[in-house]
Amino acid sequence: MRVGIRRELEARSFDQTLVRWILRFAGNPNISVRLWNGDEFQIADGNPVACMEIHDRGVLFELMRSPSIGFGECYSQGRIEIDGNFRAFMVELTAGVTKRRRRSHYGPKLRSLIHAARVNSLALSRHNVHHHYDLGNDFYKLWLDDRMVYTCAYFEDSEKTLEEAQVSKLDHVCRKLQLQPGQKVVEAGCGWGALAMHMAEHYGVDVIAYNNSHEQVRYARERAAAAGLERQVTFVEDDYRTISERCDVFVSVGMLEHVGLANYRTLGALIDRCLAPDGIGLIHSIGRSHPAPPDKWILKRIFPGGHVPSLGEMAAIFEPYQFTVLDIENLRPHYAKTCAAWLENYDRVADRVVDMYDETFARMWRLYLAGSSAAFETGTMQLYQVVFAPQDNNSLPMTRAHQYPGSH
Amino acid sequence: MRVGIRRELEARSFDQTLVRWILRFAGNPNISVRLWNGDEFQIADGNPVACMEIHDRGVLFELMRSPSIGFGECYSQGRIEIDGNFRAFMVELTAGVTKRRRRSHYGPKLRSLIHAARVNSLALSRHNVHHHYDLGNDFYKLWLDDRMVYTCAYFEDSEKTLEEAQVSKLDHVCRKLQLQPGQKVVEAGCGWGALAMHMAEHYGVDVIAYNNSHEQVRYARERAAAAGLERQVTFVEDDYRTISERCDVFVSVGMLEHVGLANYRTLGALIDRCLAPDGIGLIHSIGRSHPAPPDKWILKRIFPGGHVPSLGEMAAIFEPYQFTVLDIENLRPHYAKTCAAWLENYDRVADRVVDMYDETFARMWRLYLAGSSAAFETGTMQLYQVVFAPQDNNSLPMTRAHQYPGSH
Repeated sequence: MRVGIRRELEARSFDQTLVRWILRFAGNPNISVRLWNGDEFQIADGNPVACMEIHDRGVLFELMRSPSIGFGECYSQGRIEIDGNFRAFMVELTAGVTKRRRRSHYGPKLRSLIHAARVNSLALSRHNVHHHYDLGNDFYKLWLDDRMVYTCAYFEDSEKTLEEAQVSKLDHVCRKLQLQPGQKVVEAGCGWGALAMHMAEHYGVDVIAYNNSHEQVRYARERAAAAGLERQVTFVEDDYRTISERCDVFVSVGMLEHVGLANYRTLGALIDRCLAPDGIGLIHSIGRSHPAPPDKWILKRIFPGGHVPSLGEMAAIFEPYQFTVLDIENLRPHYAKTCAAWLENYDRVADRVVDMYDETFARMWRLYLAGSSAAFETGTMQLYQVVFAPQDNNSLPMTRAHQYPGSH
Repeated sequence: MRVGIRRELEARSFDQTLVRWILRFAGNPNISVRLWNGDEFQIADGNPVACMEIHDRGVLFELMRSPSIGFGECYSQGRIEIDGNFRAFMVELTAGVTKRRRRSHYGPKLRSLIHAARVNSLALSRHNVHHHYDLGNDFYKLWLDDRMVYTCAYFEDSEKTLEEAQVSKLDHVCRKLQLQPGQKVVEAGCGWGALAMHMAEHYGVDVIAYNNSHEQVRYARERAAAAGLERQVTFVEDDYRTISERCDVFVSVGMLEHVGLANYRTLGALIDRCLAPDGIGLIHSIGRSHPAPPDKWILKRIFPGGHVPSLGEMAAIFEPYQFTVLDIENLRPHYAKTCAAWLENYDRVADRVVDMYDETFARMWRLYLAGSSAAFETGTMQLYQVVFAPQDNNSLPMTRAHQYPGSH
């Protein structure tokens, strides 16, 4: 070994050797690297996907200290730059890291458990939600669809635009829940209210929708009033844990990621209290194929308090209350497309984001969107839609054909 | 309390009081009871579903010692008789027991874990499989469909007969797997070979199918030869753990129930070794909404070595190998209908079963079929079809519309 290392040091600069070590840790992605001194080289054989420019030697030490935080911080600060297709670069990088980690199980599982021990209190949850969702509605308006749906879209066919695919998602969720006019729906974590309003307007149900974010609730109320839906839709600015209404349908799209593993039983108990014996529920959440702690940089900069569960971990919501899981669909490729569409929109308005915040913030969010798309593309992240019901609810349809209108 | 008990004893016979205690443990089902001395009474208000005749006092002690084994043994021996619709009686009884247990979680979970510690060795597995499946093909021919499919059927519409619904199930599985001509399929636990032959004949794939049961494999080979499918379908009489072939598709319908929790990682590792990177798999298994040990009587008389997992427990197959779960469908109501159809067939040939075996055996199987139908009807048991793939397989369709031909 010593001889090998010495030979490597002789043949290349010390800096190049450090880069190679770092990239070996990242599974030898097929990229090239350009250093601050103009040195350019590539690691894997073949045509590199893109070139990673490293602007100062300090970056190498940041990457060695913590690859995830190091890359996130240095990219945000402009000390790393990607020459070429940024999303393709992130896919290549993520695929490499994921493959490298493929054989470990107990380590990530244990770290996931340790991470899970941290409980999101009511106050902390409000703080965390504020961090992400109260950035200002104007910011999200820049790059989301018109309805402001900030969750995975459903590209029923590949021709759909993001706008259309978000409506398809809303309808896909409603069809899975088999909404009937007059039913009472509780929504936990309603974002800017798009699903609540869609359910009320197109399926004739009454909705009580909870959200901790002041900015989002204010916006949702304005929109519901403008659409004349104030009677059918009530937006409550409060934590999901304060939900007490009885309902026929429980739905939560994109909230579980913020709940934290330690609160899954609390969530299950809440649904158990609220849901009618012949009721039905749906939880839509980012997930993983196996337990693992959150990405450190995402946790630090984007989603404090977040946890992305495996299906085995999600069982803690349903199994203690003997909910029957009726249907799980994995929409992973749809979220890769959704994030790619967001990134495209975002790149078009990047200058305005810099004006609203600053360069570092703008780059941070660009990395987050590209990285998320890459994570779904490579299977590092999944998107689960779980439909469930009380164990002895026999009023449900025999097949899922109703989810695919036009069939039979 | 003492005064209450004394008053009860005064008002009723000691035997009646025992019965009431036993039935309170069973969640006060809406049935009436007739004792050996002609005493008849009912527990719950309303029109009883059926009458349970208890033919001797010893039955009461058997029921108190172990409700599940006591009921199973006494019914098999004819010491308990049901006057009225047997299946409806079993549904009422099972619903009561299930409701009574509803609030406990850690107890059943712990007992499930303890049960799981018992590993099914190769020799033990062969013994267990022999116990159930080598009863003789003639026995199963009496009450299964023509294809001898001994797993949950798929009643796409309620008009389907059992025969038709079994074909629908085979096609539903094949559509979920998106079989392509020329693909290589490994089947673990193939019963009498119906799925293997259906896949080969109608989807043009090559199948290697494993089964530990000598009787079943012999029969499957004969049928494949008669159908001219010997080249496409190979039946191997061996344990699933000896599978070593590489394949595009892995499928296992109704075997997991016999694998035992302690072997789930072994099964996952096996699939990981066999399945191509762009492959796909399906596991179809009876399940539960929450972890619990098997029913004691079923374990003793019907399925030695069996374990019926919750989805959380099934995660042990997929998560260590980072398989992505793509799709889970719960076919619980279909299995209630399937078992009811089997019971109907069985009751028509009960005399012949008595001739082949004896009265006790015939009653034992009647109880097993009626009890299974009741377990699915009441949500005590579930039927999960889990479709999975290697984490980074991006060659899969975006939606599940292909499972519902005629849609879009």
